Amino acid sequence: IRLRALASQRKLKFPVISVNDAHMKYLFDNRYGTGQSTFDGWMTATNLLVAGKKLVVAGYGWCGRGIAMRAKGLGANVIVTEVDPIRAIEAVMDGFEVKPMAQAAREADIIITATGCRDVVREEHLRNIKDGCVLGNSGHFDNEISKRALEELGGKPVRVREFVDEYRFPDGRRIYLLCEGRLMNLGAGQGHPVEIMDMSFSIQALSLQYLSENYEKMLPSVYNVPKEIDNEVARLKLKAMGIKIDRLTREQKLYLSGWEGGT
Amino acid sequence: IRLRALASQRKLKFPVISVNDAHMKYLFDNRYGTGQSTFDGWMTATNLLVAGKKLVVAGYGWCGRGIAMRAKGLGANVIVTEVDPIRAIEAVMDGFEVKPMAQAAREADIIITATGCRDVVREEHLRNIKDGCVLGNSGHFDNEISKRALEELGGKPVRVREFVDEYRFPDGRRIYLLCEGRLMNLGAGQGHPVEIMDMSFSIQALSLQYLSENYEKMLPSVYNVPKEIDNEVARLKLKAMGIKIDRLTREQKLYLSGWEGGT
Amino acid sequence: IRLRALASQRKLKFPVISVNDAHMKYLFDNRYGTGQSTFDGWMTATNLLVAGKKLVVAGYGWCGRGIAMRAKGLGANVIVTEVDPIRAIEAVMDGFEVKPMAQAAREADIIITATGCRDVVREEHLRNIKDGCVLGNSGHFDNEISKRALEELGGKPVRVREFVDEYRFPDGRRIYLLCEGRLMNLGAGQGHPVEIMDMSFSIQALSLQYLSENYEKMLPSVYNVPKEIDNEVARLKLKAMGIKIDRLTREQKLYLSGWEGGT
Amino acid sequence: IRLRALASQRKLKFPVISVNDAHMKYLFDNRYGTGQSTFDGWMTATNLLVAGKKLVVAGYGWCGRGIAMRAKGLGANVIVTEVDPIRAIEAVMDGFEVKPMAQAAREADIIITATGCRDVVREEHLRNIKDGCVLGNSGHFDNEISKRALEELGGKPVRVREFVDEYRFPDGRRIYLLCEGRLMNLGAGQGHPVEIMDMSFSIQALSLQYLSENYEKMLPSVYNVPKEIDNEVARLKLKAMGIKIDRLTREQKLYLSGWEGGT
Repeated sequence: IRLRALASQRKLKFPVISVNDAHMKYLFDNRYGTGQSTFDGWMTATNLLVAGKKLVVAGYGWCGRGIAMRAKGLGANVIVTEVDPIRAIEAVMDGFEVKPMAQAAREADIIITATGCRDVVREEHLRNIKDGCVLGNSGHFDNEISKRALEELGGKPVRVREFVDEYRFPDGRRIYLLCEGRLMNLGAGQGHPVEIMDMSFSIQALSLQYLSENYEKMLPSVYNVPKEIDNEVARLKLKAMGIKIDRLTREQKLYLSGWEGGT
Repeated sequence: IRLRALASQRKLKFPVISVNDAHMKYLFDNRYGTGQSTFDGWMTATNLLVAGKKLVVAGYGWCGRGIAMRAKGLGANVIVTEVDPIRAIEAVMDGFEVKPMAQAAREADIIITATGCRDVVREEHLRNIKDGCVLGNSGHFDNEISKRALEELGGKPVRVREFVDEYRFPDGRRIYLLCEGRLMNLGAGQGHPVEIMDMSFSIQALSLQYLSENYEKMLPSVYNVPKEIDNEVARLKLKAMGIKIDRLTREQKLYLSGWEGGT
Repeated sequence: IRLRALASQRKLKFPVISVNDAHMKYLFDNRYGTGQSTFDGWMTATNLLVAGKKLVVAGYGWCGRGIAMRAKGLGANVIVTEVDPIRAIEAVMDGFEVKPMAQAAREADIIITATGCRDVVREEHLRNIKDGCVLGNSGHFDNEISKRALEELGGKPVRVREFVDEYRFPDGRRIYLLCEGRLMNLGAGQGHPVEIMDMSFSIQALSLQYLSENYEKMLPSVYNVPKEIDNEVARLKLKAMGIKIDRLTREQKLYLSGWEGGT
Repeated sequence: IRLRALASQRKLKFPVISVNDAHMKYLFDNRYGTGQSTFDGWMTATNLLVAGKKLVVAGYGWCGRGIAMRAKGLGANVIVTEVDPIRAIEAVMDGFEVKPMAQAAREADIIITATGCRDVVREEHLRNIKDGCVLGNSGHFDNEISKRALEELGGKPVRVREFVDEYRFPDGRRIYLLCEGRLMNLGAGQGHPVEIMDMSFSIQALSLQYLSENYEKMLPSVYNVPKEIDNEVARLKLKAMGIKIDRLTREQKLYLSGWEGGT
């Protein structure tokens, strides 16, 4: 988002390929990678059971839905918060409870942010947060959870376990922050599984090659990863996994490109 | 796809809004609607248990993934076939087995097509299909499953139950086709749940209104549903469901539109 | 339960085999059968989408967990009510929200009872029930949902659709009851899928045979289905499904029956 | 099993309470605990993605189904092997593919044993195992996977990463064994989450208390955990989680203990 803001202000000096928009990047890295590595981080940092917990995921973008999917898969009762009405409906239709953070924080055992925005958990939410709640961030910078608000309410934190800081509120509630609010999948986990990084690196390498070969034709703007690169990486990955898929027959290709057939 | 083919051949005489591309349409209608109504059709037509069956879904587009998701949710062991490598990988990462139809048909108890293409199940697949396999179509026209091939191998079918035709192959295998290969969710089921049709009709109505108001500015081309209509329908739907969501604060909006913040 | 009550009061005149306790009975019939047939009934009766709905399941016995599992699989947000603390914890650990009916009824779009007990939804719950809530019973008799209480609050119902009665409360809320509170999977659905009835009938037949052969040795009491019959039915079913499983080697059998091995 | 073998041979000198049979023990410890801690071990040891992998679980007892459930929840395509026909059918009905280990090993990316038996993966399976397969044990002793057979086929292993040994077969295939075949959830993971150990310790403590209070009335045999202890621990746990459940009314208790009511 922010790169595009830069572009629209005409401050971008050269063409950029936004690899984060490649299917093979967001599918693997953001959705499946962040989904798993968040809980790698969780287990390493807390060694607490996920099953049976009320777990709030802030944001239902690719990262958020990866986290929600895995949290559900590990037995949590998942609540989603969103600001976008379409994503909110998707979360509802996927079987998650959707409510505002102000309500969700009152019942959450765990809150994980994945929005790319700031102050997603802020003072108004912390005021009513449930005793013992654990806060972690898998989104972006360490400003998704307001540390300033945590310190205003709970003073200087005490490190109770590697990666876990305890804030003790005046009324006795104890709130836990993982990895000082920085990315918990990188901080406490081992980061993304290797096969995901392979995938992301392939896209970056092929995109750089594409940039170098087509530089002269391109404007100083933000481009998507060319569809061919995306497909090529997918094809290579399937091959490496030993998975075969169907091919369109000649008749099928004709049918799809035409509009005369069908009944 | 086919409308765009028409457009690219310059045979389109007026502007068209492709309502099928609206988020609120494909989310509800194609994914969640088809997902459920396919199994409404299944239960009505066959009264056979889904749990424990090997169920092959041909195609992992919106309809296909709705069907796969619900089949898994009803306890089936789901296999997906695809021709697109990226969709194939998504199916793999979602925990489904992916293989060519030629192999899948050998072990399938149930095959449901949802591709929008023709001859997805054809002679080469039927030759090795498992005895007792039930074939249904939730995709498009009645040519996804080749009835010609079925008749060549099994002769004229016998109606063994309302909506169910039995083809008896010379070697004794019996194959069942639902609703003569026409859409099983419309043929045997009651079609989409009403709340889904509401949604689709809202989009169509608002799109028509948009067309009539903006007709003069538009070219004879295929347009997507304007984002505002999509959002408006989502907002109305959430309200009807009694679900509240968060709103961006002024600071958050600033942050997202800028590129100076963050650490 | 009630047969055993009869037995403990010495009013039972002959030996009885409780086929409902056979693994192959409760697994198939109660868990997987009721799970699917409840939603067959639901779709036939209402044609409403399950995805995105708040669905309350009363009781987390075999039927209840079958229903909860399928409701989740169809995209509902599932809440479970229970009176047994161990079952309640299981439901929590399986990712469901657990709360008392008095609270659950306030937010439910759908309530399905599966307890084998009476008045599971009664006046105190109906007083605060959410407008538009649909009530169905997949448990036992038509007294799980108190029709007396419904009529006291809503008067004589109006049939708004086959299988659906509307009770209109004085404050305008409209509550719907499926199949007059009788079993919705039998009333509106087609009952259990055929392969499940096969299974249940096999157990009944083999149990009757066992009874006739062993009658003289048996007391007028409630017996469980002999383990051999259960296993035999399972073996036959696997064979019919074309599924092979492992066998213990001689060394493994020895190991399992001994206590000397291991490190 | 083995303690009971000891008992049946009359070699047991004192009463024993088999805490492993308590609901609150096997639910938490074996099913949910092992389920999560196995993947804690997996991520720590391998940092490989679970999503998209073919994962074979040997054994569908409480541990096995916990592992299968979580593997599915993390996006794996799960195959189950069993020797018991009823458990095999449960696995089938839960949507898993069931086949003999001899076939499963040919396609597995990951095999995790949870049987309590020995040589579950042995020479005949290793001969045809897929290149790159990772073997781990979450069941019992380090004899579930035959290390003797691994060494016969692959010679002395090379440690390629902490907790991971590589066996290189003469034909070039490389097979990986986690934690030398000892429990991967204890070896590489942090063991069970703390709240699970709390639960297990509570049962052990309350059982010991029961033993000391009732010692004189008990025979030198293997007892189950008394139902009251199980319920008491469940009640305490629910309270600690802040979860309330329903209570039977007086009328309901009467109804359940009688056999006169109902229609």
